[in-house]
Amino acid sequence: MAQIDLNCDMGEGFGSWPMGSDLEILDHVTSANIACGFHAGDPATMHRTVEAALAKGVAVGAHPGLPDLQGFGRRAMALTPDEAYDIVVYQVGALAGFAKALGGRLSHVKAHGALYNMAAKDFDLSAAIAKAVRDVDCELVLFGLAGSQTIRAAESVGLRAAAEVFADRTYQDDGSLTPRSCPDALIEDVQQAVSQAKRLVIEGQVRSASGKDVHVRADTLCIHGERPGALVFVKRIRAELEREGVAIAALRTVRS
Amino acid sequence: MAQIDLNCDMGEGFGSWPMGSDLEILDHVTSANIACGFHAGDPATMHRTVEAALAKGVAVGAHPGLPDLQGFGRRAMALTPDEAYDIVVYQVGALAGFAKALGGRLSHVKAHGALYNMAAKDFDLSAAIAKAVRDVDCELVLFGLAGSQTIRAAESVGLRAAAEVFADRTYQDDGSLTPRSCPDALIEDVQQAVSQAKRLVIEGQVRSASGKDVHVRADTLCIHGERPGALVFVKRIRAELEREGVAIAALRTVRS
Amino acid sequence: MAQIDLNCDMGEGFGSWPMGSDLEILDHVTSANIACGFHAGDPATMHRTVEAALAKGVAVGAHPGLPDLQGFGRRAMALTPDEAYDIVVYQVGALAGFAKALGGRLSHVKAHGALYNMAAKDFDLSAAIAKAVRDVDCELVLFGLAGSQTIRAAESVGLRAAAEVFADRTYQDDGSLTPRSCPDALIEDVQQAVSQAKRLVIEGQVRSASGKDVHVRADTLCIHGERPGALVFVKRIRAELEREGVAIAALRTVRS
Amino acid sequence: MAQIDLNCDMGEGFGSWPMGSDLEILDHVTSANIACGFHAGDPATMHRTVEAALAKGVAVGAHPGLPDLQGFGRRAMALTPDEAYDIVVYQVGALAGFAKALGGRLSHVKAHGALYNMAAKDFDLSAAIAKAVRDVDCELVLFGLAGSQTIRAAESVGLRAAAEVFADRTYQDDGSLTPRSCPDALIEDVQQAVSQAKRLVIEGQVRSASGKDVHVRADTLCIHGERPGALVFVKRIRAELEREGVAIAALRTVRS
Repeated sequence: MAQIDLNCDMGEGFGSWPMGSDLEILDHVTSANIACGFHAGDPATMHRTVEAALAKGVAVGAHPGLPDLQGFGRRAMALTPDEAYDIVVYQVGALAGFAKALGGRLSHVKAHGALYNMAAKDFDLSAAIAKAVRDVDCELVLFGLAGSQTIRAAESVGLRAAAEVFADRTYQDDGSLTPRSCPDALIEDVQQAVSQAKRLVIEGQVRSASGKDVHVRADTLCIHGERPGALVFVKRIRAELEREGVAIAALRTVRS
Repeated sequence: MAQIDLNCDMGEGFGSWPMGSDLEILDHVTSANIACGFHAGDPATMHRTVEAALAKGVAVGAHPGLPDLQGFGRRAMALTPDEAYDIVVYQVGALAGFAKALGGRLSHVKAHGALYNMAAKDFDLSAAIAKAVRDVDCELVLFGLAGSQTIRAAESVGLRAAAEVFADRTYQDDGSLTPRSCPDALIEDVQQAVSQAKRLVIEGQVRSASGKDVHVRADTLCIHGERPGALVFVKRIRAELEREGVAIAALRTVRS
Repeated sequence: MAQIDLNCDMGEGFGSWPMGSDLEILDHVTSANIACGFHAGDPATMHRTVEAALAKGVAVGAHPGLPDLQGFGRRAMALTPDEAYDIVVYQVGALAGFAKALGGRLSHVKAHGALYNMAAKDFDLSAAIAKAVRDVDCELVLFGLAGSQTIRAAESVGLRAAAEVFADRTYQDDGSLTPRSCPDALIEDVQQAVSQAKRLVIEGQVRSASGKDVHVRADTLCIHGERPGALVFVKRIRAELEREGVAIAALRTVRS
Repeated sequence: MAQIDLNCDMGEGFGSWPMGSDLEILDHVTSANIACGFHAGDPATMHRTVEAALAKGVAVGAHPGLPDLQGFGRRAMALTPDEAYDIVVYQVGALAGFAKALGGRLSHVKAHGALYNMAAKDFDLSAAIAKAVRDVDCELVLFGLAGSQTIRAAESVGLRAAAEVFADRTYQDDGSLTPRSCPDALIEDVQQAVSQAKRLVIEGQVRSASGKDVHVRADTLCIHGERPGALVFVKRIRAELEREGVAIAALRTVRS
């Protein structure tokens, strides 16, 4: 039977500034990637978000980013692998502290924004991130772009990887995402996005922008919680996947 | 037989700015309180410092401070107990991440600067800090000023506390430190400081500024690593204590 | 003829996090106090906000705060007067840079949050802030709580001060505000707030919480832009004041 | 008669962490580039450094950097030209505030670290920086690498540019610096560095790493104040240049 994890970035407010509708989205996803203070998320926001995820039985993940609060971690930065290792250990450790303090535990890690994108194309950077995650807790799952260097690197250091796919992004013939700078990068039509998600999850296939069928491994599907209509979208995609008999479950559940 | 822990604040550089002579001091103390990024200490500095402490068999502790890099965590700040809980969980979690990643484990926590001083007089603030430490790891020891609210609060939440004493500060009749604003707060004379340390450790007594003998519990002695002559001082105090038959050991060792 | 300035805090988003409805409020106030990066406001937000204020003919003011982004500058901090001087010069200079770059100039300065409140009661702190403002530009007006040390200090260093009053806060017999911790600190009823504003502006009087008529100097009225209903409130108060023949104008206009 | 400005980065401590020997170096240079809080330099450090430069008659310049305190502004960051404009206006404004408050005025601007290096190769980025400087004060001089896009861009927006040369870096045949990653990038020999400086200043020529004579415009010579032996080096280079009859003077002096 097909199975998929639905993950969403959360806890991305900072201090007096909220972001997203975390509490509503939490009712419909199975994994929460929680910001750790570098691109977003202060200690109080982390506390509240971990608490809410645990209360709703959603898997708690760390969502470490670049040290760039003003740029929301979306600006590429020339970090060495050693620097990446250190900022990941720091942020994963901090979030693990909240998980532990609130009676839960960390399940996974997903890098944020520019760190995620740089790592997808850079094996050494991905390996540094994967080692950081493994060294803090070797049972954690590292989320990475399906088919990217992150998946390769995680598995090469002995860490379980989860291949992430997107309902609302188009794919290229080699299985990579169409860059956001291209006009057809985003899928705005909800039905089309739902259809792509279903095919990715059930068949492990996607129709590329040029019309070719491409194999893509799908362990977890990204829900963009900050988009308008995110709540409607996640409900619908979940309902349609369940109607097809797909099990919606976090990765940790799968393994045990 | 009398026993004492010698602790020193460490890893208090930030980025390109070093501070102190951590590597030399590490050869002579038994507990290192390592800054966690809020008042000092970036991820790379934390990594290096935890690694050095583990390599030298020194107990690794978290040294969380107020979020005030510019003021080095020395400016009092009106934090609620909930805010204190959250910044302690965050910082202890981050440092525990490095300890774990580098094959060690965290032994203790000592609050820094204004957070330490505010907590010493404020039971609720101390209780929030103590709960944060306990919730992350109930085997940690919380260091606090001997006779302060921090010791009371730690024990009231079921955490092991270590009473900290000072060789180079004078005491008042009630066992508290003479405020730094008073002219006779500091003991500049090395021999006098060494004598005070010996009496504190061996007899649990100190001669107050007004000449009265006062009982003070001494579990750990603070070494000020950033002071000129710190290295000479720590070597001498250690040698004199050992000559008196005092065992120099970290707290964790005591317990097991 | 009575005259009043209507001021509102603005530009208090940070990076990806917006706050308030600055553009709508700008149509109805005469002075904008713009955050300068310490408690809120990044360079891009400052740019946009100064530009919008200049385009609408609203007086541009700097709104410097404590270096506490996470706490939004609302947590008291033990700053020395010298430290306060320096953070005010820095922030006023930065905002003046945007005013100049965008073809305008700075009109006034109003401290934010805990810095405003601490200064209101502390002559030395207020004097340090006032000197900082004067030293950067001696033609600036310093806004301070009516009757507070800030007004005294500004005038003592040769700076023009503007006494700030509140429509939605109750007053005590000595002309100070009822502390927010008291149950009757806030005026929730819109009509009552409008009436208090009219009497403050036209008669320079307020009915205290205990029922006494108290003289309060009113140069500028604070509009809380982040409150729900702020837009409706500012429109109404402006309309009612104009109906009474009160001129609504920025302070700089008054002087020339 | 040949003339040269000697410039040095200063005020690059932060909070409790000092850096460099600013006071000693100030006796020998003619322009101080003072950090503005983003890569280094807090308000108190800026105050002290501007005050010292003014007291010694050294031209005060702003030294704006990337918002990366941990990385000391040395890590390249994907900033848009608009973002660069805003961070330069902010930092130049802040430093101009101190210059004004302390009775002086700003003379020049030199970007720091990765911002300087990225701008040298990127006309659009340089143009954004140059516009920011011009919009804050059109009389400022913008320092940039001799022969770089920064010089072109400054002049294209109507700003006076100063071409910066280096005594201790080797040059390539096209007049650009040998990248630091190359083995022969640095000139360690003091006499060789002094000779290169003299030829650059007096003849406007440099012998490239491959042995070719190349024309390089030299308006200002960079002194690396943080290097060991910096004080000895600056004294010697100044003495040797003066012996050759070269006038040592800040740029502003040149113009008037």
